[in-house]
Amino acid sequence: MSAAFSRIYTDRVLQPSYQNWKRRYYADSIDVHRAHLVMLVERGIVTAEIAARIKSAMAEIDRAAPFPDRIPEGVEDLYFAYERELERIAGAENAAFLHTARSRNDMDTTVFRRVLKRELRGVCGLLASLGRAILERARAGEAELTLLYTHGQPANVSTMAHYLGAFLLDLLEGTEALIAAMESTDQCSLGACAITGTGFAIDRERTSRLLGFRSPVPNTYQAISTSHWLARPAQALELILTDIGRLAADMLHKASCEVGLLIFPDDLVQTSSIMPQKRNPVILEHIRIQAGIASGSCSSAAHIFKNVPYQDVNEVADAPVSEFIAALDTARSCVELLEEAVKKVSSDSARAREIALGFGVTTTELADSMVRDCGIGFRSAHRVCTAFVRSGYDKTALRGAFREIADKDLPYSDEDIDEALRPESFIEARKTAGGPAPEGMASVYATAGAALARIDAALSRLDERGRAAEAELDAAWAAV
Amino acid sequence: MSAAFSRIYTDRVLQPSYQNWKRRYYADSIDVHRAHLVMLVERGIVTAEIAARIKSAMAEIDRAAPFPDRIPEGVEDLYFAYERELERIAGAENAAFLHTARSRNDMDTTVFRRVLKRELRGVCGLLASLGRAILERARAGEAELTLLYTHGQPANVSTMAHYLGAFLLDLLEGTEALIAAMESTDQCSLGACAITGTGFAIDRERTSRLLGFRSPVPNTYQAISTSHWLARPAQALELILTDIGRLAADMLHKASCEVGLLIFPDDLVQTSSIMPQKRNPVILEHIRIQAGIASGSCSSAAHIFKNVPYQDVNEVADAPVSEFIAALDTARSCVELLEEAVKKVSSDSARAREIALGFGVTTTELADSMVRDCGIGFRSAHRVCTAFVRSGYDKTALRGAFREIADKDLPYSDEDIDEALRPESFIEARKTAGGPAPEGMASVYATAGAALARIDAALSRLDERGRAAEAELDAAWAAV
Amino acid sequence: MSAAFSRIYTDRVLQPSYQNWKRRYYADSIDVHRAHLVMLVERGIVTAEIAARIKSAMAEIDRAAPFPDRIPEGVEDLYFAYERELERIAGAENAAFLHTARSRNDMDTTVFRRVLKRELRGVCGLLASLGRAILERARAGEAELTLLYTHGQPANVSTMAHYLGAFLLDLLEGTEALIAAMESTDQCSLGACAITGTGFAIDRERTSRLLGFRSPVPNTYQAISTSHWLARPAQALELILTDIGRLAADMLHKASCEVGLLIFPDDLVQTSSIMPQKRNPVILEHIRIQAGIASGSCSSAAHIFKNVPYQDVNEVADAPVSEFIAALDTARSCVELLEEAVKKVSSDSARAREIALGFGVTTTELADSMVRDCGIGFRSAHRVCTAFVRSGYDKTALRGAFREIADKDLPYSDEDIDEALRPESFIEARKTAGGPAPEGMASVYATAGAALARIDAALSRLDERGRAAEAELDAAWAAV
Amino acid sequence: MSAAFSRIYTDRVLQPSYQNWKRRYYADSIDVHRAHLVMLVERGIVTAEIAARIKSAMAEIDRAAPFPDRIPEGVEDLYFAYERELERIAGAENAAFLHTARSRNDMDTTVFRRVLKRELRGVCGLLASLGRAILERARAGEAELTLLYTHGQPANVSTMAHYLGAFLLDLLEGTEALIAAMESTDQCSLGACAITGTGFAIDRERTSRLLGFRSPVPNTYQAISTSHWLARPAQALELILTDIGRLAADMLHKASCEVGLLIFPDDLVQTSSIMPQKRNPVILEHIRIQAGIASGSCSSAAHIFKNVPYQDVNEVADAPVSEFIAALDTARSCVELLEEAVKKVSSDSARAREIALGFGVTTTELADSMVRDCGIGFRSAHRVCTAFVRSGYDKTALRGAFREIADKDLPYSDEDIDEALRPESFIEARKTAGGPAPEGMASVYATAGAALARIDAALSRLDERGRAAEAELDAAWAAV
Repeated sequence: MSAAFSRIYTDRVLQPSYQNWKRRYYADSIDVHRAHLVMLVERGIVTAEIAARIKSAMAEIDRAAPFPDRIPEGVEDLYFAYERELERIAGAENAAFLHTARSRNDMDTTVFRRVLKRELRGVCGLLASLGRAILERARAGEAELTLLYTHGQPANVSTMAHYLGAFLLDLLEGTEALIAAMESTDQCSLGACAITGTGFAIDRERTSRLLGFRSPVPNTYQAISTSHWLARPAQALELILTDIGRLAADMLHKASCEVGLLIFPDDLVQTSSIMPQKRNPVILEHIRIQAGIASGSCSSAAHIFKNVPYQDVNEVADAPVSEFIAALDTARSCVELLEEAVKKVSSDSARAREIALGFGVTTTELADSMVRDCGIGFRSAHRVCTAFVRSGYDKTALRGAFREIADKDLPYSDEDIDEALRPESFIEARKTAGGPAPEGMASVYATAGAALARIDAALSRLDERGRAAEAELDAAWAAV
Repeated sequence: MSAAFSRIYTDRVLQPSYQNWKRRYYADSIDVHRAHLVMLVERGIVTAEIAARIKSAMAEIDRAAPFPDRIPEGVEDLYFAYERELERIAGAENAAFLHTARSRNDMDTTVFRRVLKRELRGVCGLLASLGRAILERARAGEAELTLLYTHGQPANVSTMAHYLGAFLLDLLEGTEALIAAMESTDQCSLGACAITGTGFAIDRERTSRLLGFRSPVPNTYQAISTSHWLARPAQALELILTDIGRLAADMLHKASCEVGLLIFPDDLVQTSSIMPQKRNPVILEHIRIQAGIASGSCSSAAHIFKNVPYQDVNEVADAPVSEFIAALDTARSCVELLEEAVKKVSSDSARAREIALGFGVTTTELADSMVRDCGIGFRSAHRVCTAFVRSGYDKTALRGAFREIADKDLPYSDEDIDEALRPESFIEARKTAGGPAPEGMASVYATAGAALARIDAALSRLDERGRAAEAELDAAWAAV
Repeated sequence: MSAAFSRIYTDRVLQPSYQNWKRRYYADSIDVHRAHLVMLVERGIVTAEIAARIKSAMAEIDRAAPFPDRIPEGVEDLYFAYERELERIAGAENAAFLHTARSRNDMDTTVFRRVLKRELRGVCGLLASLGRAILERARAGEAELTLLYTHGQPANVSTMAHYLGAFLLDLLEGTEALIAAMESTDQCSLGACAITGTGFAIDRERTSRLLGFRSPVPNTYQAISTSHWLARPAQALELILTDIGRLAADMLHKASCEVGLLIFPDDLVQTSSIMPQKRNPVILEHIRIQAGIASGSCSSAAHIFKNVPYQDVNEVADAPVSEFIAALDTARSCVELLEEAVKKVSSDSARAREIALGFGVTTTELADSMVRDCGIGFRSAHRVCTAFVRSGYDKTALRGAFREIADKDLPYSDEDIDEALRPESFIEARKTAGGPAPEGMASVYATAGAALARIDAALSRLDERGRAAEAELDAAWAAV
Repeated sequence: MSAAFSRIYTDRVLQPSYQNWKRRYYADSIDVHRAHLVMLVERGIVTAEIAARIKSAMAEIDRAAPFPDRIPEGVEDLYFAYERELERIAGAENAAFLHTARSRNDMDTTVFRRVLKRELRGVCGLLASLGRAILERARAGEAELTLLYTHGQPANVSTMAHYLGAFLLDLLEGTEALIAAMESTDQCSLGACAITGTGFAIDRERTSRLLGFRSPVPNTYQAISTSHWLARPAQALELILTDIGRLAADMLHKASCEVGLLIFPDDLVQTSSIMPQKRNPVILEHIRIQAGIASGSCSSAAHIFKNVPYQDVNEVADAPVSEFIAALDTARSCVELLEEAVKKVSSDSARAREIALGFGVTTTELADSMVRDCGIGFRSAHRVCTAFVRSGYDKTALRGAFREIADKDLPYSDEDIDEALRPESFIEARKTAGGPAPEGMASVYATAGAALARIDAALSRLDERGRAAEAELDAAWAAV
């Protein structure tokens, strides 16, 4: 009882926990009570009469004002405060039946899992929305030139479709991994009681279904001791956020004024009153920072279990869970900012063309063409092109070098040469599966579309199961 | 060329990389050359004649002594040294055709992915073996009593089967997550060339299949830039290792001499010559430490990508990959030690019984029985049992308290009471799905068995695909 | 201007930042304005007349209601809202002088450093208080027996003084390292302006002193770009919290019911109504968890800078700083809980004696005594003692073994033997510097006392400097 | 004895540990034997005669071939193998005296601390060398223009001296923090024995001094249990490496071809045969990666202690220590690469001038000048300059705007305007302490010089103490 606890323990442990429960977990705990009582009655463990009295007392508590902000004297947590009310209204011996074949261990982790699942579902929804936005933006950018870099240096000309399509596939892979990780969260610990279950003939499948879980946790000790329902989603989200941080870093480079490939509209740019040409797309930096903060919190959530005995421990209680849920809000913010940025960014194709020509990134294509068309080898073709670049793209120098090295005339007109050097030609040639030409992108869109469809289907199944469970619980409760 | 590079750069970057390649990646790079050349010939990009000369030169290099330990003057890496030999033997222009429609980017990551996949496959095999060993050990321990703890205090009596079965399910879930994560590794980057693919009409599916991958990476920029093939397995393995560290921490507690629940044979124990009763199962501490070291390396491998631009970067090159592969060896060691420990540990059932009775962990079962059998409520039953415990388990006191509180005689014989308090009764009563009674454990075994079967099937498919690919590559190579 | 910003950017970046500033940074920003204006007037950069108008406008803003909760339309942050008010009251051109030779870069980091320094000062105060509490508790525990463990096994008998004294020295070393790390925080960035300082003849020493810093940051680019003022304290605190987590893990073991060495009073213990002997000192687990959460946040705060360009970046802006300050509150809570636990814990000397004898931990002392007193070597002495232990501590067996091995009679009376085996004798003999005998502990107390004195002196100097700066700023402001 | 240990335990724990000891720790363990025996003789605990026999046996072992590569049958570690040899040569009872008042606990951590200290000393030497190289390079770069960025956008023109001087101060601060952290390493655990010291009248100060430590660890339990000697240097080095990673990220941006501010010589650049203008300073990326790998290992070394009981644990034994020492080699490599890069990098002042003018970064200085010289306020000056920039730097437009806004003629000649816009003027004006003008840099050099002097002095003291200890030990050993 909190009266018995030291002031510091009360202030630093019990009161914060009580507040966490009031704020985040109370509503779900009521559902857990309902589902548990329904099952107890159905299994004949509690009589209809006692159940009715408990139900009526619960309704009365519900109608009363909310629980006070300060933890009441003489209770250890919000559940005890609730139980005390129940006892007051329904009588102690009757009230006690609600807690038959149950302990705070299985009740609490069931509540945490259910709340966390809902929060993660929200993040997944935003990720799916981001995925769709990127796919749409990519498709719209099939003809929008950009430069792609390797090791910080311009390497190939490509399209916004190709660039965003790459990240999109990583994002969707990460999202599917997150949904897979949620399977650990989406299991019901109810019925594990303290850790070994109970001698009462309960039905764990029934409460699991009434609360919308996919199944009970298979082993009762595991149900209380495992970290997976928290640690696996934390890891999966950390990877997504790290990917986002990497994209932000790359986009920051592309958006820097010397590079100038990415353009953002005024409503995402901080300008300088004195320097109209200075346009700082600050949103990208905030995406990086929020990704950094949230991924750090995910890492922390997973690492908290390091060397903690494989037992029931408070590392799976309200304090760490609430910390993680707070990190999810930062993650949501970061995902929304990225969707905003992706939707509004545009590529400066002219600047891409300029860099492409200036740094000769399409000259390799001219060399490859010579190998395909002119019966010379790579070494020769590259020597010819090097001479061409060194001459400052002088076509006469090109023809001279070809003649000298290949001992014949270059069978290309000036237009052929210009065509080979055109960024668009570079792209059109890259029909390889996964390359930037429309033929190459077809499989990218198909892969992304299929992943999005799987994600949508998985989330729909989750939502559908949730709605069905809610209806089933309401109906069963009405019958108590 | 290394001649041109500064001494420090050569000593600190080129030479270590050259050694990494010699040690870990050379053999797979030859397979990549073979698969690529086969495809180039099949697609008509390289003539049969040139291909034959390359093949013959490759055979000659293979017959020659290995490459020197020190990076040769004038080359940047092992591949350039190889190419130089190829040029020397086959002629420069011929040799160059091997590198048609390819760059070091896609070639290198293909090699890294292939080697890493094989290493991870090895870890998965050990994990499956550990899983089977635990399952067998659990089944053998259905009647072996142990105590299970919550928050470091004895809470319930249970069986070794139930205890190990909990960890087993976490382990198998982790292993399946690792196998799922390997899907990112098991994709072929070949054909992505620098980052945008090529204008040559290559067949990415063909090289992917010849090298045993499940598919090409869908987008060519993603193929070079993504971290998933490294970071996802690193995360998955980190979770498994953290679980192992938690189990070691719990077993260390159970094996401490004051607790004395777990017994290890002499060949896993350090004894003191002077203190024969001191038996230190040091293997548990080494499991914890190796799990800690290896999980730290996994975390480091995933975190290295933080804020690194989403481009082709050397974070996916030989230095970080080799660090991660070295960590896998520590992980393997840790898994083998745990298998050894699990196989050889036994439970001191007598000690479990002693603690169970001493700390009254079965008294709750007596109270529950009274609720079920004697028509009294929980509050009353608990008050009766509290009086019993306080009396030092005096049955007269128990009967007195029952009469006083329930206003009738306790309908239990002394034998009934002893029976209710017997640890075995506590366990037998817990038939709940996932509980320690044989009826409860049935679903645990079924779940574990199904997971093991899925793991075995997945690994078999992987191996089978690998063997088929090898045969197909050998056949195709013979035809070049 | 926020009107111009997209809704999502406003909601997810500007508004949270505005709220952070309102809640945590506003008051210090006013001090920065005051110190800066004082210096500008003193250096003749702003006229007394203009300064007076600014001062008067600042007073008027101060008297007005607080800034609204929602960021006003058309401003980017709280500072712009403030500036707008200033312009409204004092006139735009006058108001602008407040920002002479300053930018938001140096102004903001000055505010963050000042607030963070104060928060860290608070943590250091609690750590010093904890240190004193442990020292006092240790001194009171000179005669309180406990067992010390190696690798989880009982190794030596010792005292609470010795045990707590060890942790105390680690704690004080960590606290001194934290105070040293705060030197990076305790530097003023003002005058760095954007990053290169200014052409105005400002006096950076003056503003630094008026704001209570030990000195300006030496290099203006460093002033804005460095992470040290945030990352160094985060690291130092992480180590302290990791140490606390380790102590909690060890105390949890000592407090477990099988070991039973540590006793906590009722107000720190959760009991079971049915199991009166079950006393769970839950405070220890919460210490571990809060240490884990807070150390994870410290790690995250330091890791956020990974691969972030060495420039002015928003990683040193309000979002990460506020996250870190929130973590400090968890750290404070954890430290307070540990102080509570240390003050109230007591040792069960009888149980320590029982384990010591039961596990023969003092028998080594008997062997050592034989070497010193009886002219026999270690091997012989250990063989004699082993026989004694194996006999179940039968003194006749001891004398027989001695005679057989040493070929003479053991020159010890029964009382001598008992005396050698007494835990107190074991302790009294250990007068080595740093050992548990009072003579050994003298240097421990001296070292701890000296460290505490240095810590107190450092914190007093900090406080004194702060008070002096406040007075100097008030006086100088009055003169504006 | 290893004969008794299981094969897996031997292969996975004992053999790797034996090899670690052979490779890294053997030589220092001999010194520890020597110092300990000297002290035992001096204190009269071991007779001169026995000591002479031990000394002679040690010499014989030293002359013999090295210990075999495979751990011998029947021993647990290299020390036992050594002891067995000693017993064989000197007789078991004599040999045993070497281990009087000592245990493997204090002996081993003394060896680890001594080896680690030497390795860290090596890293500090490289950091000091890097510091000197940067200082020299900075001084040489007083007139070398560069651009400094905020949030990825060009903000101010500055000098290489100013830029490198900022990082230098962070580096030196980090190095001093590392040296301070080494104070935890530089303490001797000898005499702590198992954990509580000994009843023999040993002299801990003496062995500490003979082995070159600054002092014994104050408390004997702390001596064995603390993580600080490993974790504190790991943290300090992690910060330095993170700073290096940040500098590399910023230099990569400055060295990118679009920005083009930093130029590296041919021996640090990878070129493309076909694209002569493409010059990739790959060394920067390798600096980032090695910093990432080594800082990850540092983080892992510190995190391994998380929730590990505060006892003697094998986390401070050869496996983790050897992992950390391996990470130091990567750190050394990274520091050497950075020194090479800093020494050889040059700035393209012309490009800096071009960006400065193109992005108007000096226009703020023109506005500031107007405030100082022309009696107008900031708002007005900025409006004038904005008009000037928008006109494309048309001086007529500037004069017109000034006349219109200030209602008088601009009192600047065209030369005055050009002078105000000259990058050099911008720099010369910034005489603020810590700014880029030579007057501003004076205090930066002074601060850096003082820090370097302190570092050199600290390392010299360390070396001097080491040499003196070696001489003293040799002399004392000769006297045994």
